[in-house]
Amino acid sequence: MYNAKAYATPSATSPFAPTTIVRRDPTDKDVQIEILFCGVCHSDVHTARDEWKEVMPTVYPCVPGHEIVGRVTKVGSAVTKFKVGDIAAVGCMVDSDRTCPECKAGLEQFCNNMEFTYNFPDKHTGKVTYGGYSDSIVVDEHFVLNVPSNLDLAGAAPLLCAGITTYSPMKHWCVTEGKKVGVVGLGGLGHMGVKFAHALGAHTVVFTTSPSKVEDAKRLGADEVVISKDANEMAKHAGSFDFILDAVAAQHDINAYINMLRRDGNITMVGAPDKPLPVGVFGLLFRRRSFSGSLIGGIAETQEMLDFCGKNNITSDVEVIPIQKINEAYDRVVKSDVKYRFSIDMASLKAE
Amino acid sequence: MYNAKAYATPSATSPFAPTTIVRRDPTDKDVQIEILFCGVCHSDVHTARDEWKEVMPTVYPCVPGHEIVGRVTKVGSAVTKFKVGDIAAVGCMVDSDRTCPECKAGLEQFCNNMEFTYNFPDKHTGKVTYGGYSDSIVVDEHFVLNVPSNLDLAGAAPLLCAGITTYSPMKHWCVTEGKKVGVVGLGGLGHMGVKFAHALGAHTVVFTTSPSKVEDAKRLGADEVVISKDANEMAKHAGSFDFILDAVAAQHDINAYINMLRRDGNITMVGAPDKPLPVGVFGLLFRRRSFSGSLIGGIAETQEMLDFCGKNNITSDVEVIPIQKINEAYDRVVKSDVKYRFSIDMASLKAE
Repeated sequence: MYNAKAYATPSATSPFAPTTIVRRDPTDKDVQIEILFCGVCHSDVHTARDEWKEVMPTVYPCVPGHEIVGRVTKVGSAVTKFKVGDIAAVGCMVDSDRTCPECKAGLEQFCNNMEFTYNFPDKHTGKVTYGGYSDSIVVDEHFVLNVPSNLDLAGAAPLLCAGITTYSPMKHWCVTEGKKVGVVGLGGLGHMGVKFAHALGAHTVVFTTSPSKVEDAKRLGADEVVISKDANEMAKHAGSFDFILDAVAAQHDINAYINMLRRDGNITMVGAPDKPLPVGVFGLLFRRRSFSGSLIGGIAETQEMLDFCGKNNITSDVEVIPIQKINEAYDRVVKSDVKYRFSIDMASLKAE
Repeated sequence: MYNAKAYATPSATSPFAPTTIVRRDPTDKDVQIEILFCGVCHSDVHTARDEWKEVMPTVYPCVPGHEIVGRVTKVGSAVTKFKVGDIAAVGCMVDSDRTCPECKAGLEQFCNNMEFTYNFPDKHTGKVTYGGYSDSIVVDEHFVLNVPSNLDLAGAAPLLCAGITTYSPMKHWCVTEGKKVGVVGLGGLGHMGVKFAHALGAHTVVFTTSPSKVEDAKRLGADEVVISKDANEMAKHAGSFDFILDAVAAQHDINAYINMLRRDGNITMVGAPDKPLPVGVFGLLFRRRSFSGSLIGGIAETQEMLDFCGKNNITSDVEVIPIQKINEAYDRVVKSDVKYRFSIDMASLKAE
């Protein structure tokens, strides 16, 4: 065991403050990473503020962060994929049972024994897992990813959650060249959706409520932008989409988007509104449409996504902040006042 | 043009009564059929009573019926698939444009120019199409099906709607041997779903609110029957289904069934509740489940379904009635008081 520096919140209503946490010494299969950048996901805010207490109550002190990029500082004797000095990444998961059908299918995110990167029982320490708002982390090499050397590291960090969350459903629902793809909501997830749809060769259409976002959506790769409040503009696209990625976590009229789908089209939610969405069944019957959800992605696919980003030079658009600004950043995340993800420069933690 | 006997309803609130309608003389590509049996679908009731007026107002007099089985009495000079004396069938569609991508994909039910068998503009007569509550019908051979000779004709009629409506989504969502399949609602559609799931080799589970249906569900092919009001019984099946066919047209808790699905499981609606169903998004995200709809099936697949029924000796369980009992039958359809479909013996029409 060793001490690591971290930023933690001591209760649902307290601000983050510097602290010291205990990490395990690397075992044979572990990789120890000096964290360079960590993205800030809306899930971090929900967990820090105990807003998901009905599903997974938060244990304090809480150290969030599951969009982690850093440099390997130590490897266990059985580690084969990494060596000291490599640039490596860790996403939302740090363990799973590796024997169940989900794990065997490379879909660790659906394993019943999957372990989240933070606020999850940690079988090594007997406490809870601590995430990336820290100067180092120790993770089994199976859950550590290679980061292509051409990527900007601050912008690469959010790929580990926002990236894989939007890439995985596009691959699953066969987004390829020539398909028409919609992205609803232009935030941390949505802006990655636009980049991936564009890079996969799809005709990419962004739906947004804000005329102010039109220009930026086009810069990110959108071929068209539809203001979703404009019924005429919406009507023009009825029945024409192969796939729509819905990244809106607030209540919204999902039927308006279901009706945008062509025959056998699919709309996948990656945002998670807390109340049920009313779905009109006739919209599904005609054209045999489907409505589904998707949750991050497996480890093999996460590596595939990172390699795809390396080839296409894709990173998240980030605002880099020092860890000392995390409380302010949280308030801005809640207001969607960030283009499009905060990435914490962990060098700032050394000063504490 | 020639006169055909039929039963029609002259208004939304009138009972059916005998009448005479005009049918076209067969063109080169047409098949004329003497109707022997016609199934009674809940859609017939909705149309006769103008309950779908917002989507498709009913034109009176209205002659419903889209589960038609009969004997070929005349064929046009270019007809190749049928000869006089053959047993043939007609389902929900009598025409489409045959040139659009949907038609080319064999999915005429999604063609924008598809023509329903009744209450649809008839380009030959300039009136509306008249369905199977009649002694004969004339249909382009593309929309006429072969009926395997071993099938009981009264029970074969409902295959043309209830059959294909339940067979098609099972094929689309890959129901095969060893899969675990649920059927929600044991009525005209549901009882066909049970027969198909069983014949396809799936472990078949029926969900019903009525303990009185348990025995019959097992007779139809269910391996297990779950009383959906019993929370304990429901909990035992959580996360275990590959596919669920939902044939309930009333409001019901769809999330209870979404939670029954395993990873990548699908639930398809073939019933159409008139109000939106509230769908919890977390249930879709975890396990990457999907919720979809399906609408009858294309002509090629309808023939495939009939051939499958021939091989497996599958027909609908029917209560055969004379046409004179149609008003009474409608009231019983509305109360779900039929096991499981009415089939009208059209010989009764000759007496009129």
